[in-house]
Amino acid sequence: MKVYGDSRSGNCYKIQLLLGLLGKQCEWIEIDILAGETQTEAFKARNPVGKIPLLELSDGRCLSESNAILNYLAAGSSLIPNTEFELAKMLQWQFFEQYSHEPAIAVARFINVYLGLPADRKQEYQQKQEAGHKALAVMEHQLLQTLYLVGNQMTLADISLYAYTHVAHEAGISLDGYPAIKRWLSMVADQRGYMPMQVKS
Amino acid sequence: MKVYGDSRSGNCYKIQLLLGLLGKQCEWIEIDILAGETQTEAFKARNPVGKIPLLELSDGRCLSESNAILNYLAAGSSLIPNTEFELAKMLQWQFFEQYSHEPAIAVARFINVYLGLPADRKQEYQQKQEAGHKALAVMEHQLLQTLYLVGNQMTLADISLYAYTHVAHEAGISLDGYPAIKRWLSMVADQRGYMPMQVKS
Repeated sequence: MKVYGDSRSGNCYKIQLLLGLLGKQCEWIEIDILAGETQTEAFKARNPVGKIPLLELSDGRCLSESNAILNYLAAGSSLIPNTEFELAKMLQWQFFEQYSHEPAIAVARFINVYLGLPADRKQEYQQKQEAGHKALAVMEHQLLQTLYLVGNQMTLADISLYAYTHVAHEAGISLDGYPAIKRWLSMVADQRGYMPMQVKS
Repeated sequence: MKVYGDSRSGNCYKIQLLLGLLGKQCEWIEIDILAGETQTEAFKARNPVGKIPLLELSDGRCLSESNAILNYLAAGSSLIPNTEFELAKMLQWQFFEQYSHEPAIAVARFINVYLGLPADRKQEYQQKQEAGHKALAVMEHQLLQTLYLVGNQMTLADISLYAYTHVAHEAGISLDGYPAIKRWLSMVADQRGYMPMQVKS
């Protein structure tokens, strides 16, 4: 199996973190988003959406969308709940991540870290920060009640939401008002096999 | 079980369509988004994200995110593939729907139908239409190869993407350039138990 990814991307980091926790390895093919490497004909033949991460199986079949890849790679592990309601709750948090969290915090981080906060995107940056705080408040509300997002066991939901939450400061968002999130971040980082996000030099 | 939803919302319609196909019924509680009914304290106690649809079980537990609700209600049915790769492919399309399709087509439709296309949102409307065509091109590419999105059997991915695709014209988006999507829309509408989207008078 190969993973095509950009090491600076939280969506790609999700896959690295999961592989670490599962003690599995994959060939990693570094893709530079800013250099347009997801928009080449060769890449779009593998993923017509033109996005990373992308998982390629040994028989050539490809799977995209970070959270779908997590579900595939973790099949049969304890990171996927085995009751129907808890499984649906895990998916609920993963859809929340892609709809309400990532488009806020990941995009603010992209504008700040990748693009260097250009003047013509400052208003959007501030709007994304507000949306990011809304998403964090929803997580804080849950994490005041349970150790992890779906209950007292870690699931893929925690991996999905850890990825951009733990670098929220790079989006200009302080976690000072979110003590339960801070406690939860430490618990994820303390897992056996935890992999830190790799920073490309 | 109760479903809180707005009949004009494609995300809510997904649940009605699934229930029809499964021959199941739920109590439907109509919620008016524009009247602020998802932002009341009572509603946010059930769903802190303040969004519909929301499923409430008979014991009071709640589940949000339309695609997570679909996965819960369809558990054990033929609409969820039973191989790991096809299951992940179904999820891939559901995450694609929430990240690349809904924020384009559903939002353009909202600006047009709910808000009456105000002048200060025309530029955003046009950008959303462009993004909508990109998402439709990805679907067309797949539907030229397989009858349904995940293969030759209908899955929840088709329900998720049918909801806003079949009303793309209400977002000002013509499907004339997408013959495979048109063929697929007819196949979904021909399913036994199919429910049309209800229009509130």
